[in-house]
Amino acid sequence: MENHDSNKWPTWLPLRNNLRSSSPYGAPQRPELISLNTNENPNSLPAEVRDAMMDAIASIAEGLNRYPDRDALALRSALAGYINNASETSFEGRNIWAANGSNEILQTLFLAFGGAGRTAIGFTPSYSVHPMIANITGTAWIVGSRNSEFEIDVHGAAAGIREVKPALVFLTTPNNPSGTPTPLAEIEEIARAAGDVRALLVVDEAYAEFSDEESAVTLIRRYPHLVVSRTMSKAFAFAGVRLGYLVANPAVIDALLVTRLPYHLSALTQAAAQVAIEHAGALQAGLAEIKLERERVRAALILAGLKPLPSAANFILFSGFAASSKETWQAIVDRGVLIRDVGLEGYLRVTIGTPVENDEFLAAIHALES
Amino acid sequence: MENHDSNKWPTWLPLRNNLRSSSPYGAPQRPELISLNTNENPNSLPAEVRDAMMDAIASIAEGLNRYPDRDALALRSALAGYINNASETSFEGRNIWAANGSNEILQTLFLAFGGAGRTAIGFTPSYSVHPMIANITGTAWIVGSRNSEFEIDVHGAAAGIREVKPALVFLTTPNNPSGTPTPLAEIEEIARAAGDVRALLVVDEAYAEFSDEESAVTLIRRYPHLVVSRTMSKAFAFAGVRLGYLVANPAVIDALLVTRLPYHLSALTQAAAQVAIEHAGALQAGLAEIKLERERVRAALILAGLKPLPSAANFILFSGFAASSKETWQAIVDRGVLIRDVGLEGYLRVTIGTPVENDEFLAAIHALES
Repeated sequence: MENHDSNKWPTWLPLRNNLRSSSPYGAPQRPELISLNTNENPNSLPAEVRDAMMDAIASIAEGLNRYPDRDALALRSALAGYINNASETSFEGRNIWAANGSNEILQTLFLAFGGAGRTAIGFTPSYSVHPMIANITGTAWIVGSRNSEFEIDVHGAAAGIREVKPALVFLTTPNNPSGTPTPLAEIEEIARAAGDVRALLVVDEAYAEFSDEESAVTLIRRYPHLVVSRTMSKAFAFAGVRLGYLVANPAVIDALLVTRLPYHLSALTQAAAQVAIEHAGALQAGLAEIKLERERVRAALILAGLKPLPSAANFILFSGFAASSKETWQAIVDRGVLIRDVGLEGYLRVTIGTPVENDEFLAAIHALES
Repeated sequence: MENHDSNKWPTWLPLRNNLRSSSPYGAPQRPELISLNTNENPNSLPAEVRDAMMDAIASIAEGLNRYPDRDALALRSALAGYINNASETSFEGRNIWAANGSNEILQTLFLAFGGAGRTAIGFTPSYSVHPMIANITGTAWIVGSRNSEFEIDVHGAAAGIREVKPALVFLTTPNNPSGTPTPLAEIEEIARAAGDVRALLVVDEAYAEFSDEESAVTLIRRYPHLVVSRTMSKAFAFAGVRLGYLVANPAVIDALLVTRLPYHLSALTQAAAQVAIEHAGALQAGLAEIKLERERVRAALILAGLKPLPSAANFILFSGFAASSKETWQAIVDRGVLIRDVGLEGYLRVTIGTPVENDEFLAAIHALES
C-alpha cells in the first residue's frame, strides 16, 4: 500500500485522524535478494535446536485445544535465568514480562503509562516504531536530539526531561540505526532525571548481546522506574518466533498484567522460546563471528572511502557515498543486496550477514560510481 | 494478584488513572480439574493434524532466524477460502486480517477507530474483554442492555446508536455468556443505524460454527462498515495457537495495516493455522457431538429443576439454583468440576465438554443441596 493521502479513505470509515496520513510500517521483504535490511541474524537454526524445538512442540500438540498458560510462568522464569546468567543479577519470573516481539512489549507500556494527555520523549534518529506506537496510542511524542555522532547530550537530555515532565522516556542502546551505545553512567543520569519527574525510563536493548557495554538491567534495583526491553529476534536468531521481553520492577509487571490481552502468548511461542533459552549457547555461538565481521566490514568501508559509524550492534550506518541515499540503495539492490534506507539523507544502514553475504555487499559498494 | 486498591501502586509508577483499580482479566487455570470454564473445545488435536502441523513447522524451522511474512498473505488467503466455503461468499485475502487471538483483532480495531474522545457501545452482559479493551485504549464505553432473555431490543438499540453516535458498536452473536444468537435481520437493522452515524459495527462471531444462524459475513458486501471477528480457538479446537481473524471490507483492513505492530504474527502461528484450515474437516468433526451434548445437558438441567437458557454456542448459562452463584460454583468445584461464575448473580456458565466430562458436571449438579 502506498503512502495514503488522508482524503483517500472512504467517508464511511471512522478512522482516527492521526492515522489517516500513515502508511504501513515495514521494509521490503524480498527473500530472493541477500537480505541485509532488517538486522536479522544470518545464522539459521542449528539442527540440535530444531530437534529440541520439534520435541517440545510435539509434547504439547495434543493439548492445543486448551488455552496456553496465561501468565507464561515457566518462560518468564527461564528468561530471568538467562538475564541473571549474563548480567550477574538475581531477577525472578515476576521481574519479567514476555510478548509477541518487543513491539508488543512497547505497545503495552504505552497503553499502561502513555496514551491521551501524556507525553513520551525519544532521542532520534532511533527505532522508528517508538513514535509509531506513540501515535497509535495517542501519546504525544517529543523529539530529543542526538549530535552528529548520534550520541545523546545527557545533560541536555536530563534538563529536557525535567522540563517536559513526560510519562515515558525511550533510550535505545545500542541505538538503531546508528549502532551507538550509551554508557551506563549516562543512562543513570537520565534515569535520575526521569525519576525526578515520575517518568518511566524504557531502555530498549534489542541489540545488547552484540555490545560490550554492561546491560542497564543492572540499574533496575536502584532505579525501579527503569525498565529494559529485550528480544530473541537478534542474538538468539529467532525473529520468526516473535519473542520480546521486559526486565523490570515487579510493580511495573503488575501494571502490564492489567493492560495485557488475556492469552496473548501462544503455547507454541512459549514452548519454542523455552527451548531457545535452554540452547542459548548454541544459538549465540555465531555472535563472535558477527562482531568480527562487523569490524571487517567497517574497515573495508573505510578503505572504500566511505564513513561508517562505530557500531555496538549487528549493523553499520554509513555515509560518504556520492549519489543520494535512494539512488545508492537502488544501485546496491541492483547487485542483489538489499540494505536499508532509514530515511536519513546521506546515510544507509547495512546488517552484518554471513562472510559471503558481507563480501557480496562490499562488492556492490566497490561497484558504486564515486 | 488480587483486586487492586487504586492507592496500592507505588508513587513512582506513572500508571494511568483508569487502570489503577483494574485487576488482571482471567479465569482460574486449574488443569487438575475438569475444565468447563473457558469455552474451550474438549477435543484434543487429532493425530493427522498433529503430524501435518509438525511437518509444516519442521519445514520452516531452519529459517526462523528470519522475520515472518509481515502481511501473512498465504494465511489470509486460506482464511478467506474457509469463510467462502462455509458462507458461499467470495472474499479474498485482502478482506481478512489475522492476529494473536481475536483479542488482538479487537484491540487493533479499538486503536484504529476508538481511543480518546470516541465512544463504543456494547450490549451487556456480553464478552467482558470488549469493555476491558475500551478502558485500556481510553475509549468511552456505553452499556446497551439486553432483556431478561438476554436478547437485544433492536429498535431501542438502533435508536440508541443514532442518539449516541459512537465510533464502534459491538454485537456478540451467539452472545457470551448467554449463548443467545441475534438473527441476521436484526443485525441488519443495527448495521443501518451504525451506518447512519458513521460507526463501525463489529460482529463478534467467536462461536459462529456452533450456531445454525447464517453468518453476518454475508452482510459485508451491502454494509461495508460491518466487520466480523472470528477465532480458531473454539470450533477449530486450537485455543493454544491463538489465531483470531477479521472479515471486512478492504478499506478496514488497510486501516488495520497502519495500526498493527510490524511482524505481529509469528512464523509458527502462520504455519500452524494454515494446517488447521487444510484440516478443518478433521478438526470440526466433533462439532456435531458438542451440539448434541449441549441439548442433552440442557435437558438434564431442566429435569434437575434448573433454568438453562437456549444456547447456539458451546456453553450454557443457567439459573435456578438455591444458593448464591459463588457458593454454587464452589460446591461444583469441590466435586472436581470447574465452571464459570461470570459475575451475574443467580447465574453460572458451563462449557460443553466431552460426554464423560458433562456427566461429571451433571453429577455435581445433582449433588447440590436444593
